[in-house]
Amino acid sequence: MNIAFRRRKEAGVPPGSLIYTGTTDARETKITVTDYDRDSVSVYSPETAQACVPFLQSPRVSWINVDGLHDTVLLREIGSVFDIHPLVLEDVLNTQQRPRVQVFDDQIYIVLKILHVADDAAAEPLAEIQEEQISILLGRNYVITFQERSGDPFDPIRTRLHAGAGRIRRMGADYLAYTLLDTIVDSFFSLMERFGEHLITLESSVIESPDREQLQAVYTAKRSLIALRRHIWPMREMVNALVRGDASTTETPEIVSDTTVLYLRDVYDHVIQIIDILESYRDMVAALVDLYMSSQSNRMNEVMKVLTIIATIFIPLTFIAGIYGMNFDPDTSPFNMPELQWYWGYPASLAIMAAIAGGMLLFFRKKKWI
Amino acid sequence: MNIAFRRRKEAGVPPGSLIYTGTTDARETKITVTDYDRDSVSVYSPETAQACVPFLQSPRVSWINVDGLHDTVLLREIGSVFDIHPLVLEDVLNTQQRPRVQVFDDQIYIVLKILHVADDAAAEPLAEIQEEQISILLGRNYVITFQERSGDPFDPIRTRLHAGAGRIRRMGADYLAYTLLDTIVDSFFSLMERFGEHLITLESSVIESPDREQLQAVYTAKRSLIALRRHIWPMREMVNALVRGDASTTETPEIVSDTTVLYLRDVYDHVIQIIDILESYRDMVAALVDLYMSSQSNRMNEVMKVLTIIATIFIPLTFIAGIYGMNFDPDTSPFNMPELQWYWGYPASLAIMAAIAGGMLLFFRKKKWI
Amino acid sequence: MNIAFRRRKEAGVPPGSLIYTGTTDARETKITVTDYDRDSVSVYSPETAQACVPFLQSPRVSWINVDGLHDTVLLREIGSVFDIHPLVLEDVLNTQQRPRVQVFDDQIYIVLKILHVADDAAAEPLAEIQEEQISILLGRNYVITFQERSGDPFDPIRTRLHAGAGRIRRMGADYLAYTLLDTIVDSFFSLMERFGEHLITLESSVIESPDREQLQAVYTAKRSLIALRRHIWPMREMVNALVRGDASTTETPEIVSDTTVLYLRDVYDHVIQIIDILESYRDMVAALVDLYMSSQSNRMNEVMKVLTIIATIFIPLTFIAGIYGMNFDPDTSPFNMPELQWYWGYPASLAIMAAIAGGMLLFFRKKKWI
Amino acid sequence: MNIAFRRRKEAGVPPGSLIYTGTTDARETKITVTDYDRDSVSVYSPETAQACVPFLQSPRVSWINVDGLHDTVLLREIGSVFDIHPLVLEDVLNTQQRPRVQVFDDQIYIVLKILHVADDAAAEPLAEIQEEQISILLGRNYVITFQERSGDPFDPIRTRLHAGAGRIRRMGADYLAYTLLDTIVDSFFSLMERFGEHLITLESSVIESPDREQLQAVYTAKRSLIALRRHIWPMREMVNALVRGDASTTETPEIVSDTTVLYLRDVYDHVIQIIDILESYRDMVAALVDLYMSSQSNRMNEVMKVLTIIATIFIPLTFIAGIYGMNFDPDTSPFNMPELQWYWGYPASLAIMAAIAGGMLLFFRKKKWI
Amino acid sequence: MNIAFRRRKEAGVPPGSLIYTGTTDARETKITVTDYDRDSVSVYSPETAQACVPFLQSPRVSWINVDGLHDTVLLREIGSVFDIHPLVLEDVLNTQQRPRVQVFDDQIYIVLKILHVADDAAAEPLAEIQEEQISILLGRNYVITFQERSGDPFDPIRTRLHAGAGRIRRMGADYLAYTLLDTIVDSFFSLMERFGEHLITLESSVIESPDREQLQAVYTAKRSLIALRRHIWPMREMVNALVRGDASTTETPEIVSDTTVLYLRDVYDHVIQIIDILESYRDMVAALVDLYMSSQSNRMNEVMKVLTIIATIFIPLTFIAGIYGMNFDPDTSPFNMPELQWYWGYPASLAIMAAIAGGMLLFFRKKKWI
Repeated sequence: MNIAFRRRKEAGVPPGSLIYTGTTDARETKITVTDYDRDSVSVYSPETAQACVPFLQSPRVSWINVDGLHDTVLLREIGSVFDIHPLVLEDVLNTQQRPRVQVFDDQIYIVLKILHVADDAAAEPLAEIQEEQISILLGRNYVITFQERSGDPFDPIRTRLHAGAGRIRRMGADYLAYTLLDTIVDSFFSLMERFGEHLITLESSVIESPDREQLQAVYTAKRSLIALRRHIWPMREMVNALVRGDASTTETPEIVSDTTVLYLRDVYDHVIQIIDILESYRDMVAALVDLYMSSQSNRMNEVMKVLTIIATIFIPLTFIAGIYGMNFDPDTSPFNMPELQWYWGYPASLAIMAAIAGGMLLFFRKKKWI
Repeated sequence: MNIAFRRRKEAGVPPGSLIYTGTTDARETKITVTDYDRDSVSVYSPETAQACVPFLQSPRVSWINVDGLHDTVLLREIGSVFDIHPLVLEDVLNTQQRPRVQVFDDQIYIVLKILHVADDAAAEPLAEIQEEQISILLGRNYVITFQERSGDPFDPIRTRLHAGAGRIRRMGADYLAYTLLDTIVDSFFSLMERFGEHLITLESSVIESPDREQLQAVYTAKRSLIALRRHIWPMREMVNALVRGDASTTETPEIVSDTTVLYLRDVYDHVIQIIDILESYRDMVAALVDLYMSSQSNRMNEVMKVLTIIATIFIPLTFIAGIYGMNFDPDTSPFNMPELQWYWGYPASLAIMAAIAGGMLLFFRKKKWI
Repeated sequence: MNIAFRRRKEAGVPPGSLIYTGTTDARETKITVTDYDRDSVSVYSPETAQACVPFLQSPRVSWINVDGLHDTVLLREIGSVFDIHPLVLEDVLNTQQRPRVQVFDDQIYIVLKILHVADDAAAEPLAEIQEEQISILLGRNYVITFQERSGDPFDPIRTRLHAGAGRIRRMGADYLAYTLLDTIVDSFFSLMERFGEHLITLESSVIESPDREQLQAVYTAKRSLIALRRHIWPMREMVNALVRGDASTTETPEIVSDTTVLYLRDVYDHVIQIIDILESYRDMVAALVDLYMSSQSNRMNEVMKVLTIIATIFIPLTFIAGIYGMNFDPDTSPFNMPELQWYWGYPASLAIMAAIAGGMLLFFRKKKWI
Repeated sequence: MNIAFRRRKEAGVPPGSLIYTGTTDARETKITVTDYDRDSVSVYSPETAQACVPFLQSPRVSWINVDGLHDTVLLREIGSVFDIHPLVLEDVLNTQQRPRVQVFDDQIYIVLKILHVADDAAAEPLAEIQEEQISILLGRNYVITFQERSGDPFDPIRTRLHAGAGRIRRMGADYLAYTLLDTIVDSFFSLMERFGEHLITLESSVIESPDREQLQAVYTAKRSLIALRRHIWPMREMVNALVRGDASTTETPEIVSDTTVLYLRDVYDHVIQIIDILESYRDMVAALVDLYMSSQSNRMNEVMKVLTIIATIFIPLTFIAGIYGMNFDPDTSPFNMPELQWYWGYPASLAIMAAIAGGMLLFFRKKKWI
Repeated sequence: MNIAFRRRKEAGVPPGSLIYTGTTDARETKITVTDYDRDSVSVYSPETAQACVPFLQSPRVSWINVDGLHDTVLLREIGSVFDIHPLVLEDVLNTQQRPRVQVFDDQIYIVLKILHVADDAAAEPLAEIQEEQISILLGRNYVITFQERSGDPFDPIRTRLHAGAGRIRRMGADYLAYTLLDTIVDSFFSLMERFGEHLITLESSVIESPDREQLQAVYTAKRSLIALRRHIWPMREMVNALVRGDASTTETPEIVSDTTVLYLRDVYDHVIQIIDILESYRDMVAALVDLYMSSQSNRMNEVMKVLTIIATIFIPLTFIAGIYGMNFDPDTSPFNMPELQWYWGYPASLAIMAAIAGGMLLFFRKKKWI
């Protein structure tokens, strides 16, 4: 997950220019239309945008899914068929968008990110995350979705559409858009869960052995949270705008029905909850940094104590041994190291040394160092 | 108290699916109905949801308490009897809800957490906390409560209901809902009190002996506060929504009466006070981290000083002893260690050593190290 | 000043229960009535609440002061005479209230804290603070004050009432309530002043000798500020509610006159100023923690430098002395320590030692360590 | 600049009491009246407040400047001539006011601080700052200014008034008040500029030599910013209140004309800019503290490395020298130190020592310590 | 990029004084007029402001670009031709303006900064940044831009104007102003991108070698972000004011059309995104400081461990060697160092030394130091 922003459009380029700025490998752009009402579901794969016109006019709900964003000619064509504002088309292609909602007279444009985690990324959950920009364009009886790659996140929805005449089949395009949003938001819960488990692991390893590796893991977690915030916080504002009814312009009948708003409020609550979790993870990572620092300082203290105990015991003893290793000539004067000729000289010196060492040890015990 | 979020629902599952996500051991779901008015109280234990219909229609206040959430069939039945929105039923079962209130035309749904502390958990008050999700559904003349386990937190209320025709018996279902809320909020005060005592203990032990154990205790306290925030902060918004009258839709007569709003404002003040206390505990734990760090640094300083004093006194002395332990041959030249043959050689060397040690001690005293 | 919250009421007790939760020693409850208008002032000490009824009905302003909160029977009586809401009576007795204002149809209930500092508490200004809860109940022509102890904070007001027909005598009960509030708020300025002086002293002692004692003093100051915040911040909201006119319900003529609102705005400005001072003290204490940490680190550095200088000078010298203290037999081979027999051996070795010491000293001077 | 608050009024003193709380030396109070319109300017120095009555009644704009606040009798007289609210007069004298604006029916009271920096205070720009409280009372055709000392900050305005019939002479009293405000706000820019230069100097000296002196300078800067914030932040609210038109009560024609509001908006922008600068200085000082700490830690590391290199090289060598300084009797057994009699004993031991030293150096180079 | 504020205007100077406060070298002021409509584009370089009058009156859109701000006479002339408010003219020249928008009856004044980065400034991207103040004055059918230097940032727009009858040629002056704003805002993306790359580099070098150089680089980044915030944050408010329609006074037809507001909302989203990026960079730099500190502490720990291991192993050994280097006379008593005459004396002492060293190593391995 990269935190540094990478612009791919030059400043000064006229607004509405269609330039794909994503990183997915070139792949052909594919249109899939799922057309349904209470009674039946049909799936088409039209080759041209023009072939979508009938779906636009039919009263059935049409879900036009566009996989891959390289074919700018096709996209421009789709834009003109569905009467999409040039700025929206530009934003669909520019994959550096901030999650947000934009309301037009009879269309609502929603752009947000979905984060794909590799399933085997247990140890470093955010290292292998890949972000994909999803654009959802909600019209009166159609939803157009633009994905950078072909569509696994929405597979369960396709299954539900085919499964039978459930609520999703009985309600309009706005409910479909809600279902898409709900699925994307739910996928963040799964990310949060993995991240939480990672933090728990990290925590116990920081307590056990606060070394360089743990430091870097904590830092990586911090950095990932900074990047995640950038994706998640704007979603709050986005869903709120939908709920608040910024989406319904006064002149025309509403695109989002009141029933669906109730469901969107549920999505809003989920986004708030994800943000709550994110913020508590942030606090926790900050606490981990403190813990790391204190553990380090604890360790240093321990190292210092060992050094100090050994050094302060033996340095004075070595000094005494040094004294009696001096070569002053005892023959020259009675004051020159008479201890060396004393009968109890050696045992006495050893006793003094032992006494000093013992005193030191008592001092350290009093200081609670040992 | 676990800070990491654990989702138990798969992304893509259709909204309104009933899946219990709690952790309490399987136990049968039990319905208890307390039906009362000013004149009398009766308690029933119906086996089926259908048996609750009469209570719904009578003018008396009915408190339907549901203990245990495993019997999804029964819950679905309750849902259809009381006309509960599918999203609400889903939230009752999903025990990862954020405390919040949701208003429908003639029902108010309140979900929040109650925290159970083991009574013997004096040393580590938040380690053994278990959270339980409580759902309160307030209708015009009934209150339905859903608990994960059977209902000790509400026992005092049951007692008051039976005790006599007090205020609780004279007022409506909204007052009962207020009493439930008030009891839950009050239980947080008790938690805060224990936490406060724990912090006071922790504080004095950090000052006395800032070791690894204290570090971990401070960290645990920090972590617990992060988790607590996630439960307590949303309650402010929740109670405020009730007080503000988001709860009364314009078309229908109000579910929550003005008199009860006055009491709810009292609950709101309590929630604010709990938040105030929580935030000051947060500040205090942050101060404890600083205190720990500074105490550590103090200790390190002390250790270093002892090492430095001993080492800097004895190293020069040992050097001098080393000098006179050299074996230069005095016979070869008059310059080769003539001190060794001097009459006062040994005493003089000892005197020099004493002078150096004394000078060092004076230097340290001047530096205020000793 | 204790930061940990101590609850004294059990959860589940019905609202409106009268239980005194304060800590002042048992003392009888005493009622003092000061009854005045422009022309005269009279003081009574009625034994029963019933005796207060005439004051309630007269057009003169009556200030009913209740000292001591142990006699719950008397308080309940007062409650019924003056028609006080049960929740208010409960709050008067529960001395753990958050400062706030509550508006009823013809009464305004104000609860806040007064902090008593012992006069000789110069060294540790907040250690001996005792908090007392003051409740003010403002009616149309009366003010009831409840104090935990008998009433020194309000003595200057009593004096002004008796002193002559000043503004306080010409104006209504609302102005009396303002005067009480103003006196309490002013007493916080005095606290702030003493705290400020304490910080200045602390600051210079941290700079001079950053030892364990200072650390604890800084920590105590931090802790006291956290506790103070909890008392002072809510006062802002409280006075603002009075100023904003939340206090005047639309149906009835206003309890607080426009003239008094002007004076209350002055109190509001004072509260804001106290909060400003409090926050700058907080910043200052945070700066003191940084200063302490840096000073500690400075000291450690100094200690380390001394150790390093002494050790790195003498360790090499001691090594050289050690070399020439070896006992290799010069007779065995011409390579075995021929230096020992050289004519200039000893002086040369001393010279080499001096050169090494000098080089080290130059190195340290270059490093700016000495 | 003192951060500790110093109250000089006793709690319980009745509101509206006139007590000067400033610190300027006693000096007589002097009134200067500058009376002007488009055609002419005249300056008077009336001895009594009564002498100002004609200016109040004339249609010309009158600027009454009062220097020195010790003569409370004269001030009370001014108060009664110009019909000033007692709380305003009290605030004029109490020099501990928070900058703010207060609107009356036909007067606007503005109180704020001006900060005087000694010109030679380059090294420590905020150490010698003296604050002076300025009160501006704007009436319909007059402005009264109260200064603690005689009026250099307003000299340029006096000059402009005399200089010719510029905009200031053509417009009303509100424009004069704006000009005074603008001048005071501009003087803060000058302070900011000097502070900025000081920070730049401080920054480079912290990088170069992070010693005790720099630490204290950083701390002083931090402390000064805390004090400055207390003066500058409230000005935002103050000027905003003027701009927003809180100043124009609905009943009477406006005191502040729309044209002047446009100019006041400019002052507002300046205050916002000063606050922006202040906040970025705060961030910068916080960064300086980090820098200081890290530099300290860098230094400690460097000191430790030198000690470690020297000690770890020489301690093993000294040990070896110590071995061959032992006095085991070679005659007793062939195992007792046969090395001492070996032909290559001494060179070999020196070689071993050199090898150890070399190995250590390689190890350190690998660790990048040297 | 300089963070310290530098004022260049004296306090007390009358408002509306024209003084250029920028730092660009003196250069003549040059007017370029680009006059266009759907059909044609023409470019003129009039010598005097008077020559611009025809453009003001024609219905075509005129873009009057003024390069260089030294010729205050010419600027005053432009001011009177286009009826510019004196405060605006003053702000155009005072290059220390905070980005903001100011709305007049038929003009909107926008002032902001453009930041020029030298292309070869890869290593230290913000060190060589030069800021230039751009003023945009939008009238009903003209846009006047004031630049400190001649106009490369707007070259792409000029190209688009000439390129053909695109959207820019079909729309009014408000769209031109939008295009200018969009170009400036886009240039900040480019800056963010470079800054992000710099942070990534810095990050890996802090992890690898946390030395003095990296410390200073982190500090410089921090400081640059503080400075950047001051330029970027106010732009949010500025663009928002345009979008919100503060720009359209009620009396007159709107200067900014609804279509252009849609485009401006796009610019607003971009500014929000830049702010998001900026804030996450800030968090990242804060994390880098922590990382640096922890890495330093890690390193210190490592250094200390090496010292402690070597010292604690060899100090006891040296002591033992010192013991047997003492010169107690074995002839005087049987207790005086009999070991020296033992047959296995020397090997035994070596063995004891080896045992001690081994024990120490085991201890260190247990402590996980080696």
